[in-house]
Amino acid sequence: MKITSLQNKQIVDINKLHQKKYRDIENKFLVEGDHLIKEATKANKIISTIGLDDSYDLEVTKEVLDKLSSQASGTNEIAVVEKLDERKINGNVVILDNIQDPGNLGTIIRSAVAFNIDTLILSDNSVDLYNDKVIRSSEGMIFHLNILRRKLKDVILDLKENGYKIYATTVNGNGDFENDDKIALVIGNEGNGISDEILKLCDKNITIKMNNLCESLNAGVCASILMYKMGDIK
Amino acid sequence: MKITSLQNKQIVDINKLHQKKYRDIENKFLVEGDHLIKEATKANKIISTIGLDDSYDLEVTKEVLDKLSSQASGTNEIAVVEKLDERKINGNVVILDNIQDPGNLGTIIRSAVAFNIDTLILSDNSVDLYNDKVIRSSEGMIFHLNILRRKLKDVILDLKENGYKIYATTVNGNGDFENDDKIALVIGNEGNGISDEILKLCDKNITIKMNNLCESLNAGVCASILMYKMGDIK
Repeated sequence: MKITSLQNKQIVDINKLHQKKYRDIENKFLVEGDHLIKEATKANKIISTIGLDDSYDLEVTKEVLDKLSSQASGTNEIAVVEKLDERKINGNVVILDNIQDPGNLGTIIRSAVAFNIDTLILSDNSVDLYNDKVIRSSEGMIFHLNILRRKLKDVILDLKENGYKIYATTVNGNGDFENDDKIALVIGNEGNGISDEILKLCDKNITIKMNNLCESLNAGVCASILMYKMGDIK
Repeated sequence: MKITSLQNKQIVDINKLHQKKYRDIENKFLVEGDHLIKEATKANKIISTIGLDDSYDLEVTKEVLDKLSSQASGTNEIAVVEKLDERKINGNVVILDNIQDPGNLGTIIRSAVAFNIDTLILSDNSVDLYNDKVIRSSEGMIFHLNILRRKLKDVILDLKENGYKIYATTVNGNGDFENDDKIALVIGNEGNGISDEILKLCDKNITIKMNNLCESLNAGVCASILMYKMGDIK
């Protein structure tokens, strides 16, 4: 039965998943478009699908689908997806200290998968992982990475105890990673860099050398170049 | 005299500069905020400034300033700025074939300055260089780079005649630049890559090696990593 009303209870409930509060209560989030739904399917995370014909779990009108979409231009299909499990920390680790821009977080997730990062750790004050724009900019790579949300101080102390060398991305460090067995790289907030509390826990500062005219790189670019270099030394 | 009316002729004219059509007619564009205005000042490009007190050329009310701002959160100052001159092509060259996302273009400009690229060439169908979001994401680096807008076919033929080796960024190329004297790197459109017409003019394909799970990188990230590598071999 095609759903035609925006007041339909199922539609109202699905639409609430655009808000962090309801994503947290329901342990679900939304993805839009065939590419993201394909990646969610590979990861076996689809709960239900919404589209314009009866091949979807919920068949709805174009008006209803557009209302459910987070994009001004609408979409052709939407899925309700189960949130990702947090697995054990292992391999190459990247730590984000208070990343705020959802586009940057999505870009970093996409590059992390490209460069074989195993674990991404978000500080508890970072932007929500399940924000529509994070999912979109990740190009679905969110389903292929172990991502945790933690109090950074505790997790860094644990990592050090487990033999990780902690690199801080700063403007006054050295140019390269050393040949360490276990590396964790910390990237700071877009405007303010790494917080003092976290910086003093780090073992070494690393910097991407650049022209003096430019004060800093985009946080997604900076993280991606360093992840590329991390992958290179393995 | 403080301007209080949104209908004031000067304000109406300045506001039109948010539209490409008027930027092209007037040969001017707008920048917002102290950081961008500082960079425009260094480049000696400021025509007039607009702010909340009489230290600015135009003193306006907060309501008028917010109306002129391209950002929902408003700004503290705006400047009308002269468009940039196109200089002769020289040094390391990056060519963008049909880049559409203004955030990507701004990010590429910022990274290009960081990694000592001398000349950036935009295809004539790329997003407008003076779009508010391009300027913002460039973090003012737009004032420190030689940027041209050209028909790419002609410019690439010229570059080749002048001894440049043209690298195309594709998914099936080699991993590294060779040790060439003069390098031009072509980056393609976000969804479709480099157009066939341009691709067949290129001398060599270059690819950033990555995990198979990830089909591609963000265009700004991809360009930035390759510009970082270009800087490295000089």
